[in-house]
Amino acid sequence: MIERYRDFLPVTAATPVITLLEGNTPLIPAPSLAAKIGRDVKVFVKYDGLNPTGSFKDRGMTLAISKAKEAGAKAVICASTGNTSAAAAAYARRGGLRAFVVVPDGYVALGKLAQALVYGAEVLSIQGNFDQALEMVRLIADRYPVTLVNSVNPYRLEGQKTGAFEVVDALGDAPDWLCIPVGNAGNISAYWMGFNQYYQAGHSRKLPQMMGFQAAGSAPLVHGQPISNPETLATAIRIGNPASWELAMTAKTDSKGTFRAVTDEEILEAYRILASEEGVFCEPASAASVAGLLQCRDQVPAGATIVCVLTGNGLKDPDVAIKHSGNQIHTGLTANVEELAKVMGF
Amino acid sequence: MIERYRDFLPVTAATPVITLLEGNTPLIPAPSLAAKIGRDVKVFVKYDGLNPTGSFKDRGMTLAISKAKEAGAKAVICASTGNTSAAAAAYARRGGLRAFVVVPDGYVALGKLAQALVYGAEVLSIQGNFDQALEMVRLIADRYPVTLVNSVNPYRLEGQKTGAFEVVDALGDAPDWLCIPVGNAGNISAYWMGFNQYYQAGHSRKLPQMMGFQAAGSAPLVHGQPISNPETLATAIRIGNPASWELAMTAKTDSKGTFRAVTDEEILEAYRILASEEGVFCEPASAASVAGLLQCRDQVPAGATIVCVLTGNGLKDPDVAIKHSGNQIHTGLTANVEELAKVMGF
Repeated sequence: MIERYRDFLPVTAATPVITLLEGNTPLIPAPSLAAKIGRDVKVFVKYDGLNPTGSFKDRGMTLAISKAKEAGAKAVICASTGNTSAAAAAYARRGGLRAFVVVPDGYVALGKLAQALVYGAEVLSIQGNFDQALEMVRLIADRYPVTLVNSVNPYRLEGQKTGAFEVVDALGDAPDWLCIPVGNAGNISAYWMGFNQYYQAGHSRKLPQMMGFQAAGSAPLVHGQPISNPETLATAIRIGNPASWELAMTAKTDSKGTFRAVTDEEILEAYRILASEEGVFCEPASAASVAGLLQCRDQVPAGATIVCVLTGNGLKDPDVAIKHSGNQIHTGLTANVEELAKVMGF
Repeated sequence: MIERYRDFLPVTAATPVITLLEGNTPLIPAPSLAAKIGRDVKVFVKYDGLNPTGSFKDRGMTLAISKAKEAGAKAVICASTGNTSAAAAAYARRGGLRAFVVVPDGYVALGKLAQALVYGAEVLSIQGNFDQALEMVRLIADRYPVTLVNSVNPYRLEGQKTGAFEVVDALGDAPDWLCIPVGNAGNISAYWMGFNQYYQAGHSRKLPQMMGFQAAGSAPLVHGQPISNPETLATAIRIGNPASWELAMTAKTDSKGTFRAVTDEEILEAYRILASEEGVFCEPASAASVAGLLQCRDQVPAGATIVCVLTGNGLKDPDVAIKHSGNQIHTGLTANVEELAKVMGF
């Protein structure tokens, strides 16, 4: 990904490129979603769950780790129980760096952290809450030769903007709408940066409207104030006080876009539609982009081209899959062709 | 994938292409594995876990479902509790077909089946064993307008051979060794077919030696006879009587390759090395290819180029990840910078 977009990224010939060949993810046509909206719109999903560690975080992490290595770091650190910790661990270990992940006690049993552990992360579980974990990683990165790779690391957004480049490269222009889940608000900010840089370089003839969708129980940007106890089953966007608040507001305003809240029920409905009609299995948080599109379907201009960003792979969250699949199961059937055919409707 | 390799595939202008933009998966350099072997060998992993449903099965299923739709089928059926059922459901639903999955009672609770259910599969769970489930799907496909998409479907291997095409396209020639996990033996047969067709078309100057690796508790091709109770934690290759036995034997013999057995311990060791040194998280079964390479390391010719096929995504099997990760965890730490730094070794 760094090689492909080298001219737009803060790297030099001296930067060691730590890569898992991330990016280059498919922009999949979504004819079933388009049919639900009608008016000859075209809908695509940017399936970033097909990155090497299963989420868009890899785009930022390849750059963050490459720059850390260039700067001589021997270790990186982050506070995260989710996609960030997995990406940080995979790229750090590939680059020969140690990867420390600080989490509050009680998170170690979670499946998502298992991915980071498999990649060789060293997990430090502290007595305290997530804010204290964040404070610890900041202080450690200040005082010791350890690079912080949480979202405050500026290279993360620089890498993530390549998602916008790929969308333009695939479509031949920017879309009319870019629908995207908003949690920490880094990705919407990165995409907007990417669309602008590509536009200025003459690779697109227009800029998209940035349509940011938050989970209803975790929608500080919609409400205009931080949320102290954010709640949603879309854990990847369960963030009460987004790090990239100002950048995201600028993206919305300058693009004439909008922020909207979608309920967990709307998220799950979009999640099921994506899987069972389009054949695309994403994280619940990813489905917020599609839930938002469906909520705004009456405002979509006729003939518009719309891209919904799917940030993570559905395999990241098997519990939600088990609980919220269609569950079309018939058990205890006799091994008899006629009986089975009857159940099948023949 | 069908569009890219249309000239080599049994499709016509009339075939409706049902695709999730599968294939085009990264061929990732594995410098750490190469260093373990030495002698200037080059090692790559073909990370087919980055296909849309998380396994190489998508290559075969895009073709099988497209051909089923071309033939007018309204439904497909398979007996599978794993990657095949997920791929069948995703592509069938995307093509507007019903997807039936027949399993023996007792499998419905498994996480892998959840993926098929999310994609909209209709699961028929029968009183009986897996052989009876297979018999049922064969009989149903014979008598009703339902297409069988188990591995006996010839289009599955035709699609899977594109993995070999992509390897040659990425390297500019065939590798010297192709290391691959062997369960039902379809994929090794498909790769061999692909390498031969590409060689005959002048796209490569040589053919690889096909190095097939089976789990020790499930190694009928190594022992030369079916196994009645195959056992291995690498569930995706836990098969006692491979469907593509003869084709696989031909691939081995004609390529001057070999079949070897690797223990579950060797598989887990390779699984951990891949994740924690190369940053690549695969299914346990996938790691059999790397376990086999490491077992045969002394036979690798100096300067050889080796490709190990990683057939599935590690996220498919979170239980193994949780049980067999490095588990470098420190819990109950005080939220104090000096204490944490000490634990980190600073």
